[in-house]
Amino acid sequence: MQFHHHGYVSEDPRVLPADGVGLNPPKELPEKVDVLIVGSGPAGMMTAAQLAMFPSATTAVIERRDGRLKIGHADGVQARSVETFEAFDFAKKITEEAYRITETRFWKPDPDNPENIIRASITDDDPTGISEFPHLIVNQARVLDCLREFMANSPSRTAPFWGWEFLELTVGEGEYPVEVKIRGTAGEQEGTERTIYAKYVLGADGAHSKVRQDIGAEHIGKPSYHAWGVMDILVNTDFPDIRTKCIIHSKAGAILHIPREGGYLFRSYVDLGEVPEDDNGQVRKTPLEEIIKKCNEILHPYSIDVKEVAWWSVYEVGHRVTDRFDDVLVEEAGTKQPHVFIAGDACHTHSAKAGQGMNVSMQDGFNLAWKLGYVLSGRSDPSLLATYSAERQVIAQDLIDFDSDWARRMAASPGEDAEAIEDFYVKTAEFPAGFMTEYPPSLLIGQGKQDLATRVPLGKRFKSAPVVRVCDATAQHLGHLHKADGRFRIYAFADGEQGSCPKLDEWAEWMATSPDSPVNRHTPKDADIDSIFDIKVIYPMAHRDCDVTKAPKIFRPASGPLGLIDLNKVFATDVDDPIQGFAGDIFEMRGIDKGGAVIVVRPDMYVSHILSFDDTAELGEYFAGFLKDA
Amino acid sequence: MQFHHHGYVSEDPRVLPADGVGLNPPKELPEKVDVLIVGSGPAGMMTAAQLAMFPSATTAVIERRDGRLKIGHADGVQARSVETFEAFDFAKKITEEAYRITETRFWKPDPDNPENIIRASITDDDPTGISEFPHLIVNQARVLDCLREFMANSPSRTAPFWGWEFLELTVGEGEYPVEVKIRGTAGEQEGTERTIYAKYVLGADGAHSKVRQDIGAEHIGKPSYHAWGVMDILVNTDFPDIRTKCIIHSKAGAILHIPREGGYLFRSYVDLGEVPEDDNGQVRKTPLEEIIKKCNEILHPYSIDVKEVAWWSVYEVGHRVTDRFDDVLVEEAGTKQPHVFIAGDACHTHSAKAGQGMNVSMQDGFNLAWKLGYVLSGRSDPSLLATYSAERQVIAQDLIDFDSDWARRMAASPGEDAEAIEDFYVKTAEFPAGFMTEYPPSLLIGQGKQDLATRVPLGKRFKSAPVVRVCDATAQHLGHLHKADGRFRIYAFADGEQGSCPKLDEWAEWMATSPDSPVNRHTPKDADIDSIFDIKVIYPMAHRDCDVTKAPKIFRPASGPLGLIDLNKVFATDVDDPIQGFAGDIFEMRGIDKGGAVIVVRPDMYVSHILSFDDTAELGEYFAGFLKDA
Repeated sequence: MQFHHHGYVSEDPRVLPADGVGLNPPKELPEKVDVLIVGSGPAGMMTAAQLAMFPSATTAVIERRDGRLKIGHADGVQARSVETFEAFDFAKKITEEAYRITETRFWKPDPDNPENIIRASITDDDPTGISEFPHLIVNQARVLDCLREFMANSPSRTAPFWGWEFLELTVGEGEYPVEVKIRGTAGEQEGTERTIYAKYVLGADGAHSKVRQDIGAEHIGKPSYHAWGVMDILVNTDFPDIRTKCIIHSKAGAILHIPREGGYLFRSYVDLGEVPEDDNGQVRKTPLEEIIKKCNEILHPYSIDVKEVAWWSVYEVGHRVTDRFDDVLVEEAGTKQPHVFIAGDACHTHSAKAGQGMNVSMQDGFNLAWKLGYVLSGRSDPSLLATYSAERQVIAQDLIDFDSDWARRMAASPGEDAEAIEDFYVKTAEFPAGFMTEYPPSLLIGQGKQDLATRVPLGKRFKSAPVVRVCDATAQHLGHLHKADGRFRIYAFADGEQGSCPKLDEWAEWMATSPDSPVNRHTPKDADIDSIFDIKVIYPMAHRDCDVTKAPKIFRPASGPLGLIDLNKVFATDVDDPIQGFAGDIFEMRGIDKGGAVIVVRPDMYVSHILSFDDTAELGEYFAGFLKDA
Repeated sequence: MQFHHHGYVSEDPRVLPADGVGLNPPKELPEKVDVLIVGSGPAGMMTAAQLAMFPSATTAVIERRDGRLKIGHADGVQARSVETFEAFDFAKKITEEAYRITETRFWKPDPDNPENIIRASITDDDPTGISEFPHLIVNQARVLDCLREFMANSPSRTAPFWGWEFLELTVGEGEYPVEVKIRGTAGEQEGTERTIYAKYVLGADGAHSKVRQDIGAEHIGKPSYHAWGVMDILVNTDFPDIRTKCIIHSKAGAILHIPREGGYLFRSYVDLGEVPEDDNGQVRKTPLEEIIKKCNEILHPYSIDVKEVAWWSVYEVGHRVTDRFDDVLVEEAGTKQPHVFIAGDACHTHSAKAGQGMNVSMQDGFNLAWKLGYVLSGRSDPSLLATYSAERQVIAQDLIDFDSDWARRMAASPGEDAEAIEDFYVKTAEFPAGFMTEYPPSLLIGQGKQDLATRVPLGKRFKSAPVVRVCDATAQHLGHLHKADGRFRIYAFADGEQGSCPKLDEWAEWMATSPDSPVNRHTPKDADIDSIFDIKVIYPMAHRDCDVTKAPKIFRPASGPLGLIDLNKVFATDVDDPIQGFAGDIFEMRGIDKGGAVIVVRPDMYVSHILSFDDTAELGEYFAGFLKDA
């Protein structure tokens, strides 16, 4: 955490100095806003949290409910989401209170006594070390609390407006082209209708999204004919794996068993079997007692003694994805700018059992928010916004395909599929962990030199590795220093030790002094020199041999009212920190060329370019493709 | 974190259910309180935070200042303090925002050019792996904020009463024998005098403690004749080690250089030399400019360009320790119970430079608070309270001796002592890290069998080691599960794998069923069975081979209104968790005998007994020595 350079900070440094709209935040929902977000779920709140770091824009979240969510129905938090939370500074906090999945245990009928289940096998949750972040289960409501806290502490001082429901929108012309009708649902505003004018609207209003309807997007998918009972319960039991994730197939059916936070609660997804086509929702009337009875039948010879049911429901698996994520018709793409977007369940609905929903929804929001922030703050042309639907719609389709496969396997009968499920589970681990997203080349993803960084896949999120920060001799995870502040990261991996890296030195001089360099073209004159680009250097050497005061000036920017020089952007590679458990050489771990490499990472943490130090023209062109001259 | 078993928790689980005095916490300072704490510094707030976990007792903190501390003068946080913060659930939070010391760099005059300094050597801060916790520098005000938050979230819902200063106290008779006169210092209460009646009073009112005066304790020490200038400053500089801890000796004098949190600020202790005996405080009038000039002279050929001074002062080193820490005269010890205590700077004052003050003060409070909680909640006889002064006065004397030595070496001229200082620094690392405290045998420290756990020193704090929690297959640091809830921990290290550990099984049966067992003697009938003793078992085996439902019942207590069985107290030893960086076998790491061992750890984390499974009588006697029958 860096602070004090804009004035002495006595209280929580997570509370950033108010700026822009945060200097006088509106207490009532304003009539005109830059961005109106409909819905305060994971997609909406992630968008709002990131936008809160762009205090020149007015963002308002409206929520039908009259206060915070109490019991969230989503609970699976992928490692990629925890990685994202690190950028929002609450990864450690939520990890402390969450349940952590380390293993999945597979149960099947005992061949010698098929009425009973026996433990067939155990697999590690992340056997291949996909991430340094854990896989968690925690109440969605707590994730939303943390995002809300981040918004409140941001320069914009944003807070959701509770008790307003979306009615309809129309897109017209002018500075605030989207006209939105809303109605109060609680308190003094109950029944009151208002019209809000927005530059942009995000529909994060769930599976039955009205915003989706209003922009005429199609929610494509097939109805489901398989039902599940789901319960969050507290029990006493003799089942030995009650506190680990289990996939249970017995003669009586199947259970997906997910322990939850706090040491006692768990969620049980109980297979209720195929649903006749003419069922007309009858299955949803299945009583709780029947689900518990079924659960006990499946667990035989073990049983559960239910002490309390915190929440339960019956649902049928649906798999649907929307054809586009904004209000620009497919045939109009490129000729028109979008003004209305949809995200999260409004775009993709599927089974809950692969623990994907909340995660993909938050990544929708993370993808969209910085782009809106760039356009609204004048850094980028609105054409940038077309990349949101282009990038995220494909991801949603992949998700639906994966989840359909997963749900089908889970519901299969045990004899034919128990080992196949385990196999599928292990082979596809990277997908549910959230790391399979790979954006193709576009305005935002350059045609980079992958061979300069063989294990830093272009278009995928930047997988962190440890380094030593030279100035204070501390081991740091390089990627964890990437905060959700809307900045691009440019990592310069030097072509040798300090003093023996001519290419780095030449590149750094160009970055600092050339009128063509992105820093000089795109950084506003009155802003801190590192306000758009956070440029760091990594020298392949021992930190004690590196003199931070002799690094090129582009890596030692002076900022803030005092012009204090920031020494925290210079790194070495001799990592060995038993206290944090950090070790390894980032050049080797990430396959960085000895001749050096420049790696560009987007504000939402995706690797967007890989270049050599000679490719200064390409670097300039890449950024000029979507950033305006300052 | 464990929760949900006393009802579903939707909001932050760190906010515990209110209980006792917390059900209706007083808004105004009550006339009668169980404990009155004078002063809201580290000693007072740590005491209050721990007492807040005993909601049957009324604790009030009064503070002369009219609000929270803004700029704290102490900033050094030992690993032992961070370990303590883990028990109060804010270790990770404060670590995130703190500066972390990993190295000390020694500078001395260049032999070839003695006007200049050169870097002589670098030593690791914790070369021997004393602790898994870091050594931090962070504003004392933030530590106090975190303790205040813990109090607010505790069952007692305690908050300090600002704007009251202590005037005097007298100890009489009756239920509330201490009569305390106080006066309002701010707002409406300014100038108002009140009398408060307390069962116990803690003077945590600093070096000039009036409580100390009123109980006639002697503050013994010698005046100092060496002065230091201290500055918290923001600079630009060419000195390469500005962000690491440095000990600098040059021809022009000495500097102790301590970087601070946030990436820019540092504290410089500049040696102002010997002070004549007849100086009469003149040295304290040294102007800031002279200290900065001196600093630049010492740093030559480097220099600092000071951009802002956040705080500065001049002080002379004083070393004083109080002869007793309570109101019982040495000659009356054992015949009278104490009612007034002193802690922190009220008992021990010394130089700031070894970064000890705040840390030792908090341990004073941690030591005293649970004892007061036990007496006030009826668990123990008041005779327990005599152990506070007995245990802590010796620690204070050790501190003063260490610090005198340290200050003398720091102030010495460079030629004679530079290497000696480095040597001293490395050799004594365990002391400043806070781990040298070793309480001698007493009412609270049993004459245990050290050979059953050779690397778990009796009387020292329990050094954690990693284990695997069987129920959820997660690696845990055993000691980090010790929360500041006032409970004793009893760790049963089994004499073999599950099913092959007859001694453990017999002991567990005795603990669960014998009327002589501490659990049955000292746990109130209407309380949860694990409310006084948190009893855990560690089996020397792989977690996947251990069946948690087959562990003896004493390790699977049913608790809460639902009688839910707690499965979180059973551990295995096959630790290998790359995500958390945990590895190792606790039996080997802590020298545990293969025949098993019972290790008792006090609420303040000190190892208080080590016994074999056969020693049930001794275990019972130990607890009966200071716990009442329930």
